[in-house]
Amino acid sequence: MKKHNFSAGPCILPQSVMEEASQAVVNFNDSGLSLIEMSHRSKDFVAVMEEARSLVKELMNLPSNYEVLFLQGGASLGFLTAAYNYLPQGGTASYADTGTWANKAIKEAKHLGNATVVASSKNANYTSIPTGIQAAPGSSYLHFTSNNTIFGTQYKEFPKVDCDLICDMSSDIFSREVNAADFSMIYAGAQKNMGPAGTVVYIFDKDKLGKAGNSIPSYLDLQVHLAKDSMFNTPPVFPVYVSMLNLRWLKANGGVAAIEKVNQAKADLIYSEIDSNPLFTGHAEVNSRSNMNATFRLTDESLAADFDKLWNEAGINGLKGHRSVGGYRASMYNALPLESVQVLTETMKELARVKA
Amino acid sequence: MKKHNFSAGPCILPQSVMEEASQAVVNFNDSGLSLIEMSHRSKDFVAVMEEARSLVKELMNLPSNYEVLFLQGGASLGFLTAAYNYLPQGGTASYADTGTWANKAIKEAKHLGNATVVASSKNANYTSIPTGIQAAPGSSYLHFTSNNTIFGTQYKEFPKVDCDLICDMSSDIFSREVNAADFSMIYAGAQKNMGPAGTVVYIFDKDKLGKAGNSIPSYLDLQVHLAKDSMFNTPPVFPVYVSMLNLRWLKANGGVAAIEKVNQAKADLIYSEIDSNPLFTGHAEVNSRSNMNATFRLTDESLAADFDKLWNEAGINGLKGHRSVGGYRASMYNALPLESVQVLTETMKELARVKA
Repeated sequence: MKKHNFSAGPCILPQSVMEEASQAVVNFNDSGLSLIEMSHRSKDFVAVMEEARSLVKELMNLPSNYEVLFLQGGASLGFLTAAYNYLPQGGTASYADTGTWANKAIKEAKHLGNATVVASSKNANYTSIPTGIQAAPGSSYLHFTSNNTIFGTQYKEFPKVDCDLICDMSSDIFSREVNAADFSMIYAGAQKNMGPAGTVVYIFDKDKLGKAGNSIPSYLDLQVHLAKDSMFNTPPVFPVYVSMLNLRWLKANGGVAAIEKVNQAKADLIYSEIDSNPLFTGHAEVNSRSNMNATFRLTDESLAADFDKLWNEAGINGLKGHRSVGGYRASMYNALPLESVQVLTETMKELARVKA
Repeated sequence: MKKHNFSAGPCILPQSVMEEASQAVVNFNDSGLSLIEMSHRSKDFVAVMEEARSLVKELMNLPSNYEVLFLQGGASLGFLTAAYNYLPQGGTASYADTGTWANKAIKEAKHLGNATVVASSKNANYTSIPTGIQAAPGSSYLHFTSNNTIFGTQYKEFPKVDCDLICDMSSDIFSREVNAADFSMIYAGAQKNMGPAGTVVYIFDKDKLGKAGNSIPSYLDLQVHLAKDSMFNTPPVFPVYVSMLNLRWLKANGGVAAIEKVNQAKADLIYSEIDSNPLFTGHAEVNSRSNMNATFRLTDESLAADFDKLWNEAGINGLKGHRSVGGYRASMYNALPLESVQVLTETMKELARVKA
């Protein structure tokens, strides 16, 4: 039986994408070669990379001066790459602190300059998104994390500041419409809404590169990668290919505007159940709730074994909360069907029928 | 028809590995989940990562103080990682220059300290491997590239120096027996003898980490990754899995000692043909010839169209030389069967029969 996969990432991708990827691993485009044994300089793979880059431009409706790269190292290396490309040595950058990932970004930026925390929900145990964020004077940029997988919080409106805006959108890119032109740079690890683990997308205004004046190691220099059309070194062939297939799927299903409606319906369904079912309570503050990751817990922890049995029997996978929050986390990325959320809410209702 | 794949990398992997990988992309271990939609923290994937690391230890017969990591960024990021972990800021490291990849390594090390070229075959257009290499006084390490894909040269004996030895073995790791204990650190991009593009293996004496005294960005710090058992951030799941399958295949086929004999037979066959066939000439000096990449050209370039037609019709793929060398390059990594080299040498003989 195919599982209802609520894993927080790596996570569910469309079944058709998995099947096409599986076929390509034995015979790509009927070439007699596997996708993974072909030269990355071959016409066939260059076409894959170019289609992946073009699909990002199209799906995010990027202005013509914006460019797209598929690199390696995840957002974890992106934290450092962001600083090297936009923060002059010894300069100041502003960071909004909404939890684990924001803190990791801050740590890496300190290798370049002053990473100043200008807003934080730490005192509220990261159950909310800070409001009224202002950049520190002289900041090269304001950096924030659009969605927080661990705590289940998400920016509903983005900060408006008079410096560059840089965003780690790892866990909600392609899930809702954003005005990319508001951002100097967006980056995102693939393994939520874009593709399998092993690649990270960088989306940026190419006219703003090279202004920080840093001596940048080659792999961390977006200009180096851009000059080589995302092929400065051997790219992660399979993760890029599957990301391309997944972006094709998104386009064929109406693009970001259409998936945003589905994502809203899934979020409405789970949060409605959390709020109406006396056995459950949400973790995040209502107006900061993530449409990607719903975090919640039992009001009576002694029911955990009963509830775990119910959702396991329903074929649900990956519902356990992150160890730092506990409880449950329903991650509902683009490829998760509404039906899977219905199956989950049925188990929550069933628990109430039996135990309330 | 399955091609005879002489691609320089990404390159051929065993057919059985491709088939098992293909199956895992739709249903891994009969779990009802694809390998690429599972959490990297799941028991199933942690077992994959641990088996991959263990197989490297076993196949390379590593001493007990040696550790193994599967990271991202390829050798291109490895050049920087090597310097950060072993070269104190402002210190000296020695580099042997055998071509493109060695030069890229040198460039990145200069971000940390003095990267001194102590030996070079540049004046011979990189057709040979320097001999009698000595490290510069006060060097933290000597760095060299064991095999040079572009020029088709390979170290037959490794330098003996009184400082640490660091080697980029991207294109010949697992192809021949080496005494890993002679090296403080070995690193290698996966996409030749280990697996698909998208991961890089680091093999090192863990007792020698942390001595350089640098403030190291997290992703570049081998101690950070080691403390998290190669899961500091989401690993490149598919490339690591396929590498694991390929290392299993190598073990089942007798390990490195057995494959070294096959590789020697393949190299003997192609070089014997190059030397005896009047229509061909080798690029590299005889005693520096690579067993992985045989570089050669036609003695009469006007026969190119005839030769290209012959090998294309024989189902051969990826024989064109690198643009900086020209001619032809037969890359003969572990998974390439002897039979494919026989097919190639038959086309060379056929050309001679028709044209000589």
